[in-house]
Amino acid sequence: MTTRTATPIKVIAEPGLPFVGTEREVDAPRDLVFRCFAEPELLRQWLGPKRLEMRIDEFELRDGGRYRYVHIEPDGTEYGFHGVFHGAQTPDSMTQTFEFDGAPGHVSLDRIELVDLADGRTLVRSHSVHQSVEARDAMVTHGMADGMEQGYQKLDTLLAGLRAAR
Amino acid sequence: MTTRTATPIKVIAEPGLPFVGTEREVDAPRDLVFRCFAEPELLRQWLGPKRLEMRIDEFELRDGGRYRYVHIEPDGTEYGFHGVFHGAQTPDSMTQTFEFDGAPGHVSLDRIELVDLADGRTLVRSHSVHQSVEARDAMVTHGMADGMEQGYQKLDTLLAGLRAAR
Repeated sequence: MTTRTATPIKVIAEPGLPFVGTEREVDAPRDLVFRCFAEPELLRQWLGPKRLEMRIDEFELRDGGRYRYVHIEPDGTEYGFHGVFHGAQTPDSMTQTFEFDGAPGHVSLDRIELVDLADGRTLVRSHSVHQSVEARDAMVTHGMADGMEQGYQKLDTLLAGLRAAR
Repeated sequence: MTTRTATPIKVIAEPGLPFVGTEREVDAPRDLVFRCFAEPELLRQWLGPKRLEMRIDEFELRDGGRYRYVHIEPDGTEYGFHGVFHGAQTPDSMTQTFEFDGAPGHVSLDRIELVDLADGRTLVRSHSVHQSVEARDAMVTHGMADGMEQGYQKLDTLLAGLRAAR
């Protein structure tokens, strides 16, 4: 089987607005991609920068459900994140709050949408809103795009395996 | 005792941004005002337009706690709202999500701050961010300021009673 070359993540962050949008194509049909967002055992294998391991402590994918996961550095340092799912969680719309354990009360509201590109590929589109433009700017400048792209490259590999297993 | 005239609510909604800010002075010290936000039996007596009754079904004022309340029309029609508190809930910062039961997944992120004006008065400042400018505009144009001011007038009365009882 072949894996077509992935296009790196595109980040949209217009000056003076608290929004961050991202777009990333992946080479798999939408139902498979959704599984990689919805099933913690799959999500754990790809989300986040390459050097970090991931442990998911809580993951209730339903309206009002909570999640909590931890990214772990090679030296054992842990970074915890948590949030709440809002509304029905479907390939058309996954909405959740996102909060770093180390900065409680500093929250973004994230929405992910999976668009069927009709050639067996899927566009993953995210839209986040922060509490201020300054908070948005801090997130974007702290290597967000690079960390996310590293995660998507792990997702490419995971999806290639899932496609091969079909 | 005297109640100094309240200044009506000020709404800040700059074009093209998803933020809404409000400012409203109330004639009471900050600790009393905080009680009216933090104690459900007090909150129930003032939040929302004058014609509506309020019932609070859930109110866990702590990091990660949930709330749910219902506004009730004179004819019995109910409008439910719910959300989650994020971070420590103090007079300096009360952060929460806000969601209408009728539109799950359409969320705003609200922060309330109580500023001691040092003359026995308190400035209630709110900052909300919506998922889009369109969602913000819809909220502002649907009588938000009028409904909030009606609530603050009930709060003025409640605070006058609490001050008198001290």
